[in-house]
Amino acid sequence: VSALETNLGPGREFDRIRLMAARWRGRARGLGDDCAFIEAGGERLAVSTDLSIEGVHFRREWLTPGEIGYRAVAAALSDLAAVAAEPLAVLLSFGIPEWLDDAGLEELAAGAGDAAGDAGAVIAGGDTSRSPQLICDACVVGRAAAPVLRRGARPGDVLVVSGTLGASAAALEGLLAGAQPPAALRARFARPPSRHALARFLAAHGARAMIDISDGLAADLGHLLAAGETGASLDVAALPVHPAAAEWAAARGEEPWRLAARSGEEYELIAALPPSVADDRLAAAPVALARIGVVEAEVGLRAHLAGAPVSLPPGFDHFGT
Amino acid sequence: VSALETNLGPGREFDRIRLMAARWRGRARGLGDDCAFIEAGGERLAVSTDLSIEGVHFRREWLTPGEIGYRAVAAALSDLAAVAAEPLAVLLSFGIPEWLDDAGLEELAAGAGDAAGDAGAVIAGGDTSRSPQLICDACVVGRAAAPVLRRGARPGDVLVVSGTLGASAAALEGLLAGAQPPAALRARFARPPSRHALARFLAAHGARAMIDISDGLAADLGHLLAAGETGASLDVAALPVHPAAAEWAAARGEEPWRLAARSGEEYELIAALPPSVADDRLAAAPVALARIGVVEAEVGLRAHLAGAPVSLPPGFDHFGT
Repeated sequence: VSALETNLGPGREFDRIRLMAARWRGRARGLGDDCAFIEAGGERLAVSTDLSIEGVHFRREWLTPGEIGYRAVAAALSDLAAVAAEPLAVLLSFGIPEWLDDAGLEELAAGAGDAAGDAGAVIAGGDTSRSPQLICDACVVGRAAAPVLRRGARPGDVLVVSGTLGASAAALEGLLAGAQPPAALRARFARPPSRHALARFLAAHGARAMIDISDGLAADLGHLLAAGETGASLDVAALPVHPAAAEWAAARGEEPWRLAARSGEEYELIAALPPSVADDRLAAAPVALARIGVVEAEVGLRAHLAGAPVSLPPGFDHFGT
Repeated sequence: VSALETNLGPGREFDRIRLMAARWRGRARGLGDDCAFIEAGGERLAVSTDLSIEGVHFRREWLTPGEIGYRAVAAALSDLAAVAAEPLAVLLSFGIPEWLDDAGLEELAAGAGDAAGDAGAVIAGGDTSRSPQLICDACVVGRAAAPVLRRGARPGDVLVVSGTLGASAAALEGLLAGAQPPAALRARFARPPSRHALARFLAAHGARAMIDISDGLAADLGHLLAAGETGASLDVAALPVHPAAAEWAAARGEEPWRLAARSGEEYELIAALPPSVADDRLAAAPVALARIGVVEAEVGLRAHLAGAPVSLPPGFDHFGT
């Protein structure tokens, strides 16, 4: 087991980890990164676990059992992408409620299997139990030959983010309001993207620090910077906003970049790349990358719009904290 | 990822696994054993995950947060003992309900850390979330140089079981009846034993098949025999009954061996050893071993008492299925 350690940023979940770590002292190793690392036979494996609970992370009226399974496993596998590990295996713990019949369980399993397959991993085991509500805990194992951690960003590094942002939060807002969101938004919420090929591309292009977006760009970029004891300047006009999410925001009087900055469970990647990385190299990425800012020595995240400072929206803490 | 496969025995959980495996087809590997095995750099790692849910696996009135944490992690680690793997790391997913305050969370974490420490493992990561009830999913990783699987028992092999049985079921019955069970019974329920040293001893003495007792001796021995496509003769008079559990059973008009045979969540080990293994070798085990039967070619579990056939009690499926 490696002794990699990462500084924890602010936030309720990190407060809890700090509280627990204080009790564990010498019994804990490498907490606070997207994965745990375990050395075996000269190789390094990355392991992560991710808990999805009905009523906390999703409502059953929103998603089919297949989508619930896909989403839970994709979310867990995203932690492997965040450290540029190659997915190998998924272990599934399912808490199965009364309302999920055998056909539903089959769909749940099929969705989980599809997410594993899309990432090149196999289902290797798990646990099932009855439960008052649907619970999916996915434990994922990957090969991390040269992991990229949250820490490692250096002043001058270029910050990039993949894909487009905002659709997940917009879909969630629609669902919470009891409306069926536009199909493009709903699809993004129900079937998060797989960024494993992109993660390998970024690692191959010298990524110094990486994180996936689960709490929202503003929050997760904050975690990356805290881990590296650095700060950054962020150009919010450069944030790539999902077109349907931009429409969604505009219709509700919100600046689209704000929706993009606060939208959680996006599972896009944020990376810090050496300043020397050329635009034409980034253009060859398997998923579009946007340059959104620059790492700076001064701690803190300084967002600006057309040269004027702006304040960032707070992080995402699932729905209805 | 290894392609080890194990025949699944009867039972509701196995029905669910069969249902899911049918949908996964080529996407699943090695289901049905106590652990999944992952090859890395010429080494083999064993990985397992175990879900504990308030109201399903325990009630909060029964246990302190520290005991809940200890029990959840010890149960998961028992799967590593079952395959004779050396515990390395534990990842914890906690679903944290309103009723658990920060002091309770610290206790929960400390209990989980104690269980990891008692088995020689470290806490390497995890996930936390709020939740309607307390959920602990422990994912455990171990080094399995020469794993012992459920399958592998051969006709003529000696069946042994470790420790004493019955205390867990007796404690559970007391708790379900709203009474505080005798301290010796309660302790056994709240703080399951760690059988990792014993597992290494059994592997070193040529154990051909092994399983830990989570569903009850009768059910788990059935799983071991089904995996190996063998049967067995079981001498129920040889079952080692916990003294306080024997008293508990006698006071309630149950034959003590029946309580021992059906008691789940014992986390003792059942092993099939070559017939050549000598009694004086077994006497050197770090935990007492009882010879309880012999593996036979004919499929099925044949229990007898003083030469007469007896029927075994059904398996344990947590409380209040």
